[in-house]
Amino acid sequence: MTQLQDARAGRITPEMELAAKVEGCSPGELRARIAAGTVVLPCNRNRKTDALCAVGEGMRIKVNANLGSSMDHAEVADELVKLRAAEEAGADTAMDLSTGGDIDAIRRRIIAESKVTLGTVPIYYAAVRAVREKNTIMNMTAEDMLEAVRVHCEDGIDFITVHCGVTREVLRSLEQCDRVCGIVSRGGTFLAEWMRYHRQENPLYERYDEVLDIAREHDATLSLGDGLRPGALADAFDRPQVHELNVLAELADRARKAGVQVMIEGPGHVPLNQIQAQVQMEKELCKGAPFYVLGPLVTDVAPGYDHINAAIGGAVAGMAGADFLCYVTPTEHLSLPTPVDVREGVIVARIAAHAADIARGLPGAADWDRTFSEYREARDWQKMLSECLDPKRAGEFREHIKAHSEDTCSMCGDFCVFKVREKAKR
Amino acid sequence: MTQLQDARAGRITPEMELAAKVEGCSPGELRARIAAGTVVLPCNRNRKTDALCAVGEGMRIKVNANLGSSMDHAEVADELVKLRAAEEAGADTAMDLSTGGDIDAIRRRIIAESKVTLGTVPIYYAAVRAVREKNTIMNMTAEDMLEAVRVHCEDGIDFITVHCGVTREVLRSLEQCDRVCGIVSRGGTFLAEWMRYHRQENPLYERYDEVLDIAREHDATLSLGDGLRPGALADAFDRPQVHELNVLAELADRARKAGVQVMIEGPGHVPLNQIQAQVQMEKELCKGAPFYVLGPLVTDVAPGYDHINAAIGGAVAGMAGADFLCYVTPTEHLSLPTPVDVREGVIVARIAAHAADIARGLPGAADWDRTFSEYREARDWQKMLSECLDPKRAGEFREHIKAHSEDTCSMCGDFCVFKVREKAKR
Repeated sequence: MTQLQDARAGRITPEMELAAKVEGCSPGELRARIAAGTVVLPCNRNRKTDALCAVGEGMRIKVNANLGSSMDHAEVADELVKLRAAEEAGADTAMDLSTGGDIDAIRRRIIAESKVTLGTVPIYYAAVRAVREKNTIMNMTAEDMLEAVRVHCEDGIDFITVHCGVTREVLRSLEQCDRVCGIVSRGGTFLAEWMRYHRQENPLYERYDEVLDIAREHDATLSLGDGLRPGALADAFDRPQVHELNVLAELADRARKAGVQVMIEGPGHVPLNQIQAQVQMEKELCKGAPFYVLGPLVTDVAPGYDHINAAIGGAVAGMAGADFLCYVTPTEHLSLPTPVDVREGVIVARIAAHAADIARGLPGAADWDRTFSEYREARDWQKMLSECLDPKRAGEFREHIKAHSEDTCSMCGDFCVFKVREKAKR
Repeated sequence: MTQLQDARAGRITPEMELAAKVEGCSPGELRARIAAGTVVLPCNRNRKTDALCAVGEGMRIKVNANLGSSMDHAEVADELVKLRAAEEAGADTAMDLSTGGDIDAIRRRIIAESKVTLGTVPIYYAAVRAVREKNTIMNMTAEDMLEAVRVHCEDGIDFITVHCGVTREVLRSLEQCDRVCGIVSRGGTFLAEWMRYHRQENPLYERYDEVLDIAREHDATLSLGDGLRPGALADAFDRPQVHELNVLAELADRARKAGVQVMIEGPGHVPLNQIQAQVQMEKELCKGAPFYVLGPLVTDVAPGYDHINAAIGGAVAGMAGADFLCYVTPTEHLSLPTPVDVREGVIVARIAAHAADIARGLPGAADWDRTFSEYREARDWQKMLSECLDPKRAGEFREHIKAHSEDTCSMCGDFCVFKVREKAKR
């Protein structure tokens, strides 16, 4: 039985108990939401772990950190350092997107060592193997793609991105459009080029029932990838994007009917004024399926600052109902991230998620802010520096220019408003 | 004649000509908006400069950088370094908020050397002088406050923040409320404590006609300060805040009648879901007066990241109609900023402003993004690294992990979507 099947049967599993406790909601409420398909609880039954994080309606917005090697840098040990950096910075989940070096070893070490929920994109695995063993991605077979899904599910991956919505029909919509950046999803690109070359339908669509069978067997949650996500503001909310989402909505229905947990992936590069509508569209079309967004980035021109760019879009998406933010690091579009970049990416995404939790009225979300502001009013620097989002950074920045007095900072000195007021009261 | 009086008389001044050219709008359109009071063109007639930047409806959203010494760090030369950092990073305006060292010398050197529109908060000057010459802020006189306004206007400051809305009635509203952080505006605090001590009305309110006379004489633009801005999410949108804004709306009317250009300052710490309403409230109450916001910060708990926090709030405020973003630096709430912090603050605020310009459909705003995305599609790294928002940062980050090939980055290597597609086409 999957968590979804259990939930529908009215059973509260030990995993639901634990996740509800972490979330601060009742197990019954969590069960009902999982049964309705508005929350997923990714927990592959092959994985022995307490890492549990419920994603969806009424839950705290979660943050994912992408890890993974590339052909330019592939060291198992370095991926584990990034994993630890992500976990220590407060990531709720991590995805291993490795495409370089011993990708099996990296994935299995991450599974063994991680304390958080884990995801992957199996088509990367199939593509890397095809290039290595058969010279080119084009020589990948449909069976190779399904095999990749199987291997990752058997290894214990909690959620897998599958680009099942990149259909021939959707690609026809794309051809009729004049996109600036075409397809920017890697999985989407591999599949689209394979489909064009072989003049065949997407195997992950055509053989979706087999994908569902594998996922159900291990209770891996499907994250339906948006292969057609816009990679430029100019491409946002166009016909291929909406067409694919419509296909994903149908596939989400089929997943639920098959007892498989499912969420939907979202853009991408989106002008700020379109974000709310994008989220509402997903929520309506996909009957409240949890929405997992990458960014969105609200401008194309800010490489070096795309973590901030994504925080702007992610906060607004979260306020509008997105449930799960994939972090973006400062090196997005420029380089594989270092552990320092990973840390920065997670913290900044957490700011966006927290701001959105407050905005959508998540019970208790604003309590941290109220308590923290009480420390500020009291000039309790010890508490401010220990209870803020990133004590390490705050402590460093307080030293940029030292204050002459322990109870103020060097910005205002004795003109500190709280100090002036306290003095006037005496 | 002020720019407002000229505009009302149907005259297009040389300053309007130049500002319209910079803005890319017609001088006639700019004149009409200035006449209507929905745009200000701060340009003190005592200042010889080409620095011209129109702020308001239909204009590009502008970014201000706060400079200034404190008692903990007061070097004229260092303020000039920060000024240059702000200008080079693309700030449209700068404010000198000095409260330490030779504040006259700092202000005058900044006026002499700046290439951008300049603002100050004259009450700081009055407060610092009172502490130095009369032992305490409480010994400041009403005449001292007006004298500060006069000195700054005579020196050539283009816009001045005056907290004329901190009235006794507004302070009564405050007393009835249970704020977590009371008043966090420095000017507001100085005035409120002075008013309580002397049991007198705010001289800047009581003698507002004199303030208007001075401003009109030099064509200094008034920036009506929000002394009661919320300094904690818990305090946002409460009675004192709205009460003060209502007073500012009346004062804005009176300024326009007196031929004085006027804009309104806004919060502060505001939950993300309140920002749109806050902006609409200002625009309606104040008859479209340009709105100058400090942040808003969307969480209280992120010291060390308040520039990002402010970018989230600023982008949403800009989309809702705010016209002018005051940057926040990474050291906000922790320390006076260094030149590096100033640079970071300006760039991040520019990202928010640009995203909001695109969102509200400013003509031409999205062109940069489209062109940039064309470089990305073409893998034109030279152009990407020279035409992005911050070429210096992008170049550095591209080196975090070096790519093996010139035409990709180390994130995807040969799995670069653009490269895979190009290869497949051949």
